[in-house]
Amino acid sequence: MTAPDPTAPATPELRCRILSIAERLFREIGYRKTTVADIAAALRMSPGNVYRFFPSKKALNESVAELLLGEIEAELARIVERRDLDVAERLRAFLSALHGMSAERFTVDRRMHEMVEVAITENWEVCRRYRTQINGLLRRLVVEGMETGEFAAGDPKVAADCIQLAIVRFCHPALIAQCDGEPGPGVDEMARFILDGLRPR
Amino acid sequence: MTAPDPTAPATPELRCRILSIAERLFREIGYRKTTVADIAAALRMSPGNVYRFFPSKKALNESVAELLLGEIEAELARIVERRDLDVAERLRAFLSALHGMSAERFTVDRRMHEMVEVAITENWEVCRRYRTQINGLLRRLVVEGMETGEFAAGDPKVAADCIQLAIVRFCHPALIAQCDGEPGPGVDEMARFILDGLRPR
Repeated sequence: MTAPDPTAPATPELRCRILSIAERLFREIGYRKTTVADIAAALRMSPGNVYRFFPSKKALNESVAELLLGEIEAELARIVERRDLDVAERLRAFLSALHGMSAERFTVDRRMHEMVEVAITENWEVCRRYRTQINGLLRRLVVEGMETGEFAAGDPKVAADCIQLAIVRFCHPALIAQCDGEPGPGVDEMARFILDGLRPR
Repeated sequence: MTAPDPTAPATPELRCRILSIAERLFREIGYRKTTVADIAAALRMSPGNVYRFFPSKKALNESVAELLLGEIEAELARIVERRDLDVAERLRAFLSALHGMSAERFTVDRRMHEMVEVAITENWEVCRRYRTQINGLLRRLVVEGMETGEFAAGDPKVAADCIQLAIVRFCHPALIAQCDGEPGPGVDEMARFILDGLRPR
């Protein structure tokens, strides 16, 4: 069933197919149990072909994490660009989407949660990049709000950093899981609290 | 060395000594490895005497956790009472002490960290009570700030809940450990950000 196929061209499409099969197997049988051989078999190719794109299992894991996080980043970037909304409305939508998409990806699916926990504990480069991306998007919103006068003048870096810390309960996988069902403010109340701090006085 | 002593009176002092020995052993050899027999031996009494105060190892663990958390609560309650400081100054001191004491107790000492991680993951009653206590102290500060006009009028419950969420990175053991050495705002910058949101406009 899995004939070696050393001549298949190393196209971006093939890389993408490998990733999407890996993601499916991580979900179905867990990321620790999935082997490169399983992924190759599902694609009817040799493991060597998978290794042409991903030199190690860790590289593959990081790329699957990047795929999942990239979907969140793309949606948040779309929200930041929505010039039909004022900055406060975009910030509210941003925080709500960040929470909803994180909860959906990292905690509802227990097997995916396992991978994300390891990624955070081992401090994978992909997690650090993701946090930097989120921070950059938040900072763009803050800068725009300060320019239009919707927000009080201030240091946009510090403000973006503080917003990112203040919402950690709504995007950190372990905290989403721990706080599930606990009383406390929802993401909309938290957004209101944050906006109160940003508005001019 | 450990003669049974069934007639020793079940005094609060004895309970306190058992707890303080348990805490020392948890620190020295880890909380999983410490047995009730070890604690009894260190006190030169029979395990039965320990069981008179703590019917199970879990009850003992919870009480050690309560002791550690109680020290933080007591210090925070002292800060809330400091009428020589205005409410904003007390809130800053409160957050700074909460962070410092949490970091010291839960993360510097790796063996204690192990117990606290389990306490949080298993959602021990003692953790829930602690969060409720911290919330109550924060709410007292917020109510006082709203009464004196230092803070804008509003719902003190929501404000206290949001403050508690916003500072989770500075008091949750796993996050203190994960964020250690990462760039980002310190607890003083976060306190300023929170106070900006509370002040009247």
